[in-house]
Amino acid sequence: MSDIALIEALCAIVGTGHVVTGRADLAGYDADGRGPVGLAAALVRPRSVQEVAAVIALAAREKVHVVPQGGRTGLVAGGAADDTGSMLLLSLERLVEPLEIDPINRTARVGAGVSLSRLNAAAAEHGLFFPIDLGADPTVGGMVSANTGGARFFRYGDVRRNTLAVELVASSPEAHVLELGRDCWKQNDGIDLKQMVIGAGGGLGVVTAATLALQPRPVHSVSALIALSDASAIGALLVAFEQKWGMLLTAFEGISAAAYAAALAHVPRLRRPFTANYPYFVLIELSGGALLQSDQLEEMLVTAVAPFLEGVEPQVADVALDHGGGLWALRHALTEGLRASGTVIGCDISLRRGDVATFRAEMIAELARDHPQILVCDFGHIGDGGLHFNLVWPHAAGAVPDGLADALRLRVSTKVVECFGGSFSAEHGVGPRNIIAYRTLTALPVRRLAGCVQSLFSPVPIGRVDYGAMAR
Amino acid sequence: MSDIALIEALCAIVGTGHVVTGRADLAGYDADGRGPVGLAAALVRPRSVQEVAAVIALAAREKVHVVPQGGRTGLVAGGAADDTGSMLLLSLERLVEPLEIDPINRTARVGAGVSLSRLNAAAAEHGLFFPIDLGADPTVGGMVSANTGGARFFRYGDVRRNTLAVELVASSPEAHVLELGRDCWKQNDGIDLKQMVIGAGGGLGVVTAATLALQPRPVHSVSALIALSDASAIGALLVAFEQKWGMLLTAFEGISAAAYAAALAHVPRLRRPFTANYPYFVLIELSGGALLQSDQLEEMLVTAVAPFLEGVEPQVADVALDHGGGLWALRHALTEGLRASGTVIGCDISLRRGDVATFRAEMIAELARDHPQILVCDFGHIGDGGLHFNLVWPHAAGAVPDGLADALRLRVSTKVVECFGGSFSAEHGVGPRNIIAYRTLTALPVRRLAGCVQSLFSPVPIGRVDYGAMAR
Repeated sequence: MSDIALIEALCAIVGTGHVVTGRADLAGYDADGRGPVGLAAALVRPRSVQEVAAVIALAAREKVHVVPQGGRTGLVAGGAADDTGSMLLLSLERLVEPLEIDPINRTARVGAGVSLSRLNAAAAEHGLFFPIDLGADPTVGGMVSANTGGARFFRYGDVRRNTLAVELVASSPEAHVLELGRDCWKQNDGIDLKQMVIGAGGGLGVVTAATLALQPRPVHSVSALIALSDASAIGALLVAFEQKWGMLLTAFEGISAAAYAAALAHVPRLRRPFTANYPYFVLIELSGGALLQSDQLEEMLVTAVAPFLEGVEPQVADVALDHGGGLWALRHALTEGLRASGTVIGCDISLRRGDVATFRAEMIAELARDHPQILVCDFGHIGDGGLHFNLVWPHAAGAVPDGLADALRLRVSTKVVECFGGSFSAEHGVGPRNIIAYRTLTALPVRRLAGCVQSLFSPVPIGRVDYGAMAR
Repeated sequence: MSDIALIEALCAIVGTGHVVTGRADLAGYDADGRGPVGLAAALVRPRSVQEVAAVIALAAREKVHVVPQGGRTGLVAGGAADDTGSMLLLSLERLVEPLEIDPINRTARVGAGVSLSRLNAAAAEHGLFFPIDLGADPTVGGMVSANTGGARFFRYGDVRRNTLAVELVASSPEAHVLELGRDCWKQNDGIDLKQMVIGAGGGLGVVTAATLALQPRPVHSVSALIALSDASAIGALLVAFEQKWGMLLTAFEGISAAAYAAALAHVPRLRRPFTANYPYFVLIELSGGALLQSDQLEEMLVTAVAPFLEGVEPQVADVALDHGGGLWALRHALTEGLRASGTVIGCDISLRRGDVATFRAEMIAELARDHPQILVCDFGHIGDGGLHFNLVWPHAAGAVPDGLADALRLRVSTKVVECFGGSFSAEHGVGPRNIIAYRTLTALPVRRLAGCVQSLFSPVPIGRVDYGAMAR
């Protein structure tokens, strides 16, 4: 089939208005959360699972490589074409139905194109929310495929832990539609196949709908920024706070002095929480239901922090309570602050919680020795061992030398995996931007199994990671 | 190889004292949580992953079917041999190392043979626990393979949600040892293969060790038994309590009047919570950390229940606060009460939370019409939609007619799956005791995929469920 015949066949499935081919029109789709990437042959926007299946069947027969795409907020280029100009982007943005909340079951049945904000608006009418807390606004299909994490992973887990069922179109000439899982919380009735789809980056097929678990939206909450005189106190704080507060502790975020300074220097209208300078900060949040008042939460917060503040060897230098959201505004401004400071070479790593401070100290010292230009501006979800270990190459140092960014990312990832038993991708998933780390740091038998699983679900290659090729 | 040569080869691997062949000695191993089952050729007890691999390689070469076995507390016969006398039981009970607690990471690295009670004793030294709450005392390998649930699933989830890594010996002549996952909370670095092993009933290989997530042990808690005038109030109570208490609500268990009466009639030393009779009961628990005192929890409990108790159309008839654990003793005595009342035909089902009351009413009415001898004594974890829907055939009615138990289990399961979109196995997993439901109620494409996944992980059949055969 010629290119023109293929486009005509796609138009016959989804309607002429929903096949995008012009370079200018495509440009907006050739991007993700880190900016422009790739060059697609075309983009198709089906509006139903039947249309998705028809597109997939056509592409499989014609050997066109399909890349499913959600809200283009991903950070590893998993939803973008490569630069060959041959891939077909499959946008799920028109699959905005169903959007059905079951308030007693605390679940939502949602089309892949529904955005997190729309889902949460519908859930909020019942005092519920989908507990994936992000700056971006991804779609449900993208979140399931990427297994999104976020700032409340610490309490509620990732998308995997909050997904009950997945509807999947397999990539084959038959384009089977599979429903994996059920709309109930408990299901222990055989091998849980949906777990393979979650976090596979669209490589096992196209996620067209999902049943998601919702959580009661906390009614009262208090937050505080804790200034540490020494980042090595992180572990002791975590252990003490969890024992004192139990499940009320809903966030435990770490911020390096460098990231904190970058945000305050470059992002307007931020309130400076402390007048003095400190080497590390921890942002905590306590949340509860309607019957636990904010003043009770605040009292519990102050009581638990006091021993650290007043100790003979105080590890807590100062505490700023949040009144009006200023602390979270600072937290959410960190990325913008870094971008304004230079070129950001981002590493999304994960460690044992007790290793966060050690890893930071060692890695920062190594980099300072070998690359004194680089400023490490790390922050992240350290309550669960997740760390956005960002290296900032200042604008003043000129362009980043060719190949250095990849080399630095692999160096950081290798230390994380081989010296600390951690992960090179805590929550962003696997895509073209970190595939070198996957290939280098994942054991061969595991890569082989992953490749076989991928071809089992979708015999025709789909998505941006060819797990089979990664095993060779 | 002759049977004698095989036994000698097994003895050469594990030592003569750890191969059991005598019928009398084997009898204790040919059983699970529901009593005696099957007839094994022999049982072998390796003490290390290397010995497990050597046994598996030998069995794969000699085409001996191996069934991995944990603590023999399962309820679907997944760890027992069939009755052909040809299967080799592989007990993991000697794999009691490692048992290492990482208190800052809140994780445990544990050998498959470590029991839940030993794990919890070690975790308790750090104020932690593994949040799988059961009457039985299974082993880690069995819990991972069965994906155990329990009475705190409502708050903490099942074993799947609390497993970070799994060590697996694949069933093949090479007996590869695979480490799937890492010792950290976040890992979003490719297809999550360990998820296939969890809940597969030993069918994907032998779980020899795991890294488990631990939770802070609640410091204070209060419980109450709520007597309902109408079981249909369950949904409204759940929604209200979750909004009032948030994450402090750690259990929401349902008890039918029949199960309640059976326990009080047959189990000695139980305290009767109410003098009057009621049609349904809900047992709730609120738990918190050190800074939330019991009297605060109790006040919150009473405040939230009051509107239901004092309403114009009160759905809550009475409330008994727990002082001294009597209510949980009653809850844990239900199974014993049922066994003393007759032959128990157990169904471990799961529904949308809002469907629990409707399903109960419809199914109980149907059974009363068609089988008036049967007493439905249901109870269970209704906060997550799980229900132990037990049919009791009274001793006075004589023996259960041949085939009736299987027919009734399938009838209940079919209504759950086909009319309510629920699951025929909420938390017990899949094994010989409910394989008919799996084969009848699981869609063929899903069974086919499961069969392929099984042969991908373990090319030589292992365990009690042949997912491949289930697809034919």
